[in-house]
Amino acid sequence: MLDQRSEPLGILRVPRGDFAGVFETVTSGWRAHDPDLPTIASGMIGSAQGWLEAPYVDVPADVGTVARALATEPRSGLRIVPGLAQRGAAPDVMRGEETQLFGAMTGSSALARGGTVVLPGTHSKWARIAGGRVEGFRTYMTGELFAVLRDHSILGRLSDPATPLAVTPGPAFMRGVRLAGEGAGVASILFTARAAVLVGDLPAADSVEYLSGLLIGDEVRSALAAGERPRSIIGERSLCDRYAAALRELGAGEVEALGDTAPAGLWHIGRHAFPGLQRADASSRSPVSDRAI
Amino acid sequence: MLDQRSEPLGILRVPRGDFAGVFETVTSGWRAHDPDLPTIASGMIGSAQGWLEAPYVDVPADVGTVARALATEPRSGLRIVPGLAQRGAAPDVMRGEETQLFGAMTGSSALARGGTVVLPGTHSKWARIAGGRVEGFRTYMTGELFAVLRDHSILGRLSDPATPLAVTPGPAFMRGVRLAGEGAGVASILFTARAAVLVGDLPAADSVEYLSGLLIGDEVRSALAAGERPRSIIGERSLCDRYAAALRELGAGEVEALGDTAPAGLWHIGRHAFPGLQRADASSRSPVSDRAI
Repeated sequence: MLDQRSEPLGILRVPRGDFAGVFETVTSGWRAHDPDLPTIASGMIGSAQGWLEAPYVDVPADVGTVARALATEPRSGLRIVPGLAQRGAAPDVMRGEETQLFGAMTGSSALARGGTVVLPGTHSKWARIAGGRVEGFRTYMTGELFAVLRDHSILGRLSDPATPLAVTPGPAFMRGVRLAGEGAGVASILFTARAAVLVGDLPAADSVEYLSGLLIGDEVRSALAAGERPRSIIGERSLCDRYAAALRELGAGEVEALGDTAPAGLWHIGRHAFPGLQRADASSRSPVSDRAI
Repeated sequence: MLDQRSEPLGILRVPRGDFAGVFETVTSGWRAHDPDLPTIASGMIGSAQGWLEAPYVDVPADVGTVARALATEPRSGLRIVPGLAQRGAAPDVMRGEETQLFGAMTGSSALARGGTVVLPGTHSKWARIAGGRVEGFRTYMTGELFAVLRDHSILGRLSDPATPLAVTPGPAFMRGVRLAGEGAGVASILFTARAAVLVGDLPAADSVEYLSGLLIGDEVRSALAAGERPRSIIGERSLCDRYAAALRELGAGEVEALGDTAPAGLWHIGRHAFPGLQRADASSRSPVSDRAI
């Protein structure tokens, strides 16, 4: 990566829906040097609420399948990576994570052969990789559940909502993970985050940390019970640390943390989509991800 | 019951926290006929945010234990029923449901011997009754989870939030119940309420009904897996119908619907608390519940 630029303009925050204007703002400096520079983006920019809808590609899918299905925004020429869809008994969708996954396959020789990757976040994904393909995946709404329960339910009222979670998960987090590991399920254990405080068994200030442990613990328990054996984890550092602690506590052992694999994924997809693309030298520029926008 | 009166004044809606004023408004007509009329209330009016905190009584608890622990608001003389607390490995609390449970024991000869009672709601309770005592219970945050997910998460954005749930649960509800019954757990199945719509497998207008089925189904599955065999159900009619349908679908058979047992419960507790209390004739009046306030 030769250069990067970040703006706080997710698809719901683009002023007046002017995606073309944001694209111009973010990329014009790079394009001034090379007007023919190919551009590629992934994530929610390809959703129905984004700039141009890029229809889902069904799993199993490899990087070539995805590269052949790129959408093209006609005025800018921007190529947009489609999300992946899983049909059948367990319908599921992802947008953006497929790019991280293809990046992870190029960065991890172990993963290139196969394994399960965890992508924690608002909508956590557990994806199964084999032979360079994304075979299938499952979404856990853990991050969004945590946010709505902390911000809108009675569970968030016991402590100061402005207090951020600890960088390193503490004893209350691990206590939540252990209770979740017993397997009763989220609905039956959530209320303990309130009841334990009311009966004097948990400090009120620890209740949100405990809630984080309950939810991440239940996700990990559920996935391990479904037979998943995670090999790698991709995402924001402190969140990955929480997942790694929960995985260790519930017997899954160690996972390799791959950091931000989206740039490598865009490059990998771009190599298939733009046949003449060469690894950049100092005079050229890298592809652009809407994750950066 | 000789008379009833209802005001939309739950504890968070009492103007300026003037509980004494609301008490006067609701009961003065009755008390004008009989200034010494004993009064009793239960529910959140006895919580830390209510009029007067009535400390929890530990389970197991029978009606006599609870009647001996009534709090007394000094100016009005109002007696307030304490909630129940469960300590130890599964800390839990209830306020108001204990009154419904003691009412249910007087109204159901089967239940007087023992069994499990389901009280669906914002914080659903599954309570085990034996020998006239509440032995233990577990809270499921099903109703609150449903409300925060519908109103504040991505799952509620696929359909019109103003559309009420059907009075009779339909096919989308039952589909959610069946998926929940497979036991993967709430966090892993919630996202299907969005993904199934995006892949064309569920009409957007059905997604909230389906969400209701996922959550009620998971509560029922979790409780049955913990060994509960429900005998009776207490609560609002259409909600009880949903639970009865889910219980039937997941193999628990039929439950008896007991309707609103809170008035009978207050009477039962009042008989222990006010030794001279006689069953009312036409010139006297019934106790008052804060459920009515």
